[in-house]
Amino acid sequence: MPESPIRKLVPYAEAAKERGIEVIHLNIGQPDIKTPQIALDAVKNNDLEILAYSRTEGSEAYRQKIAKYYAKNDIDVTASQIIVTTGGSEALAFAMNTIADMGDEIIIPEPFYANYNGFATASGLNVVPVTSYIEDNFALPPIEEFEKLITTRTRAILICNPGNPTGYLYSKEEIKKLAAIVKKHDLFLVADEVYREFTYEGREHYSILQEAGLEKHAIVVDSVSKRYSMCGARIGCLVSKNKEVIQTALKFAQARLSPPTYAQIASEAALETPQRYFDAVKEEYVSRRDLLITELNKIEGIKVGNPQGAFYCIVELPIKNADKFAQWLLESFNTNGATVMVAPAAGFYATEGLGLNQVRIAYVLEKEEIKKAVHILGEALKVYND
Amino acid sequence: MPESPIRKLVPYAEAAKERGIEVIHLNIGQPDIKTPQIALDAVKNNDLEILAYSRTEGSEAYRQKIAKYYAKNDIDVTASQIIVTTGGSEALAFAMNTIADMGDEIIIPEPFYANYNGFATASGLNVVPVTSYIEDNFALPPIEEFEKLITTRTRAILICNPGNPTGYLYSKEEIKKLAAIVKKHDLFLVADEVYREFTYEGREHYSILQEAGLEKHAIVVDSVSKRYSMCGARIGCLVSKNKEVIQTALKFAQARLSPPTYAQIASEAALETPQRYFDAVKEEYVSRRDLLITELNKIEGIKVGNPQGAFYCIVELPIKNADKFAQWLLESFNTNGATVMVAPAAGFYATEGLGLNQVRIAYVLEKEEIKKAVHILGEALKVYND
Ligand SMILES: Cc1ncc(COP(=O)(O)O)c(C=O)c1O
Ligand SMILES: Cc1ncc(COP(=O)(O)O)c(C=O)c1O
Repeated sequence: MPESPIRKLVPYAEAAKERGIEVIHLNIGQPDIKTPQIALDAVKNNDLEILAYSRTEGSEAYRQKIAKYYAKNDIDVTASQIIVTTGGSEALAFAMNTIADMGDEIIIPEPFYANYNGFATASGLNVVPVTSYIEDNFALPPIEEFEKLITTRTRAILICNPGNPTGYLYSKEEIKKLAAIVKKHDLFLVADEVYREFTYEGREHYSILQEAGLEKHAIVVDSVSKRYSMCGARIGCLVSKNKEVIQTALKFAQARLSPPTYAQIASEAALETPQRYFDAVKEEYVSRRDLLITELNKIEGIKVGNPQGAFYCIVELPIKNADKFAQWLLESFNTNGATVMVAPAAGFYATEGLGLNQVRIAYVLEKEEIKKAVHILGEALKVYND
Repeated sequence: MPESPIRKLVPYAEAAKERGIEVIHLNIGQPDIKTPQIALDAVKNNDLEILAYSRTEGSEAYRQKIAKYYAKNDIDVTASQIIVTTGGSEALAFAMNTIADMGDEIIIPEPFYANYNGFATASGLNVVPVTSYIEDNFALPPIEEFEKLITTRTRAILICNPGNPTGYLYSKEEIKKLAAIVKKHDLFLVADEVYREFTYEGREHYSILQEAGLEKHAIVVDSVSKRYSMCGARIGCLVSKNKEVIQTALKFAQARLSPPTYAQIASEAALETPQRYFDAVKEEYVSRRDLLITELNKIEGIKVGNPQGAFYCIVELPIKNADKFAQWLLESFNTNGATVMVAPAAGFYATEGLGLNQVRIAYVLEKEEIKKAVHILGEALKVYND
């Protein structure tokens, strides 16, 4: 079982805090944005007397409303094509368990969300990476690269769109290319679309569920965690028009009985969040991103992609080993009593040796904090030598 | 992936309801007991503004309090030996993933909680059943029976104590026998103790964590679901004094990020539930059980165990195939417009052909309902011929 790329650093962060050092966390995707009041109120005003199991697939009312949410996003699905899960995390686990037997393979563009490794390991799947590059802003690797990797054991291609950790938003054309290849080789296309709404500069997200002819192939993983800044709810869903996929996933769902009841109350209410909430959130993330990229680009020797979605970016640093650097930042460095915690990027690559000089930064902090954090990073790079 | 023994019947139950038939559910373990007010209030009075991820292993405060709860139950563990999980279900999944590789074996006395199959399948484990019998009231099978089944691939013995679906409570002597065998063969002993408090006639539950010398071997699966009638919370925990077990389980826990936050608030508060709540609940279950057993014994040709814990019992009926009988009850039978739904017991056995003439009954309904349900069952058996 692989370890999370951040976990190893946690003791160093704790030790730094014990020494009185302020640690600015650029390493985690826990937004500081408030949860919509309507969602919080729904839970505060609930009148349950028995906190009972919900249906395995999620409450009927909630699933009906999720279908309407998708309709508003030009995605045409019914409640019966949706299984409510315990976070997007569980939807990922169900997807992997559903599409594959032990020893099967899943192709994933790297760098990718590190926990894909954990779910793959738990379900006996082998991850086959296809590398995307910071020089290309982490665009979809050429289709030939995928074709080279397809074997008789390949069951699926998994993408994250928009991407964590890359911030890359796949274009309609890229999705169409992927659609062609999964149809040609009869594979599943799993898309982790938990950051669907987080797209910038007027770019539109194109879901694999919007692509005609993919009905048999497409499986979407979704989540309320980031959309409504309610990561602690632990609600997501798995969506597919393929009946067999839903039936098999339901068997895994039955074993764990049901998704959490309070969290479904909150998530159902969250669907009524007024548009101005999202407008404000998006505006906030855009300005954080702009500030982050501008400030980072002032540091000499740094390379940074142009994130068009989600709230992460990969930064290449003029260092040899980001693991060591991240640890050093926590152990041995501070400017005016403050330091930063970054996520070393090697953990986001499956190919040994890649991403060693990269880190992932999440821009989920207020602008003042971001500015301060990047300043600290710049000062640190001036004195760090490795 | 095996199907739940009840799931197949659900469409028949729904169809019966559509025809206006009242269906009394003897088939599910969803108590009708109210959740402690203190737990419900804690959620209603929460003042979260951001519903954030909790720690992967559960909030520190909650784990400290769980350790105190165990201390009160003569179980000596620390917070660091506890991982809060999304229901006992997830603790089961973590336990199986932690102790075994693909193709390893786990020995489980049958009949057993049917979802053990699902978790075993998902983690690539093979279930090896050792049969217990209604004639023995489902006591622990002789240790020789276990020894016969142990191979180089055996990793663990899993027990459910008190048992679902048997209602059997293992004695201290039985636990000691199991302890001896797992120590001799260096196996894990996993105990699902989610019904710990539900013991009757003054019998005491003896936890595997109370047995000295089992520190390396013992893994306990626990849950708030039944204890506080809060199944919809989705909170449980995995407990072990074996550091490696905790460390490995934590890696699986990290992949899914955290257990649900609202549910932890409710569960932490539930630990303050006054003793009179439990006294009343226990009294209620005892009287339901007594009524159920008395009424069942009035039916000719029926054999029923004497449940000493939990709130289930296995009933042997004078029929050939309980699957068909259960379906017939829903499709073709009613007394004054009412029928019953029972869980065919074959799904609780791993050995093909066992339990075919048995059903499981959960006594989580009010006494009036139980009486009516058993009456219906008796009437049905008078006319059913197979
Ligand atoms: C790409 C991606 N997918 C899935 C998840 C899982 O999130 P959750 O389980 O909270 O829905 C995350 C969380 O950070 C993520 O970044
Ligand atoms: C024996 C046993 N173990 C575990 C569970 C899982 O329950 P939960 O996930 O709600 O804690 C149940 C639920 O019925 C059960 O009967």
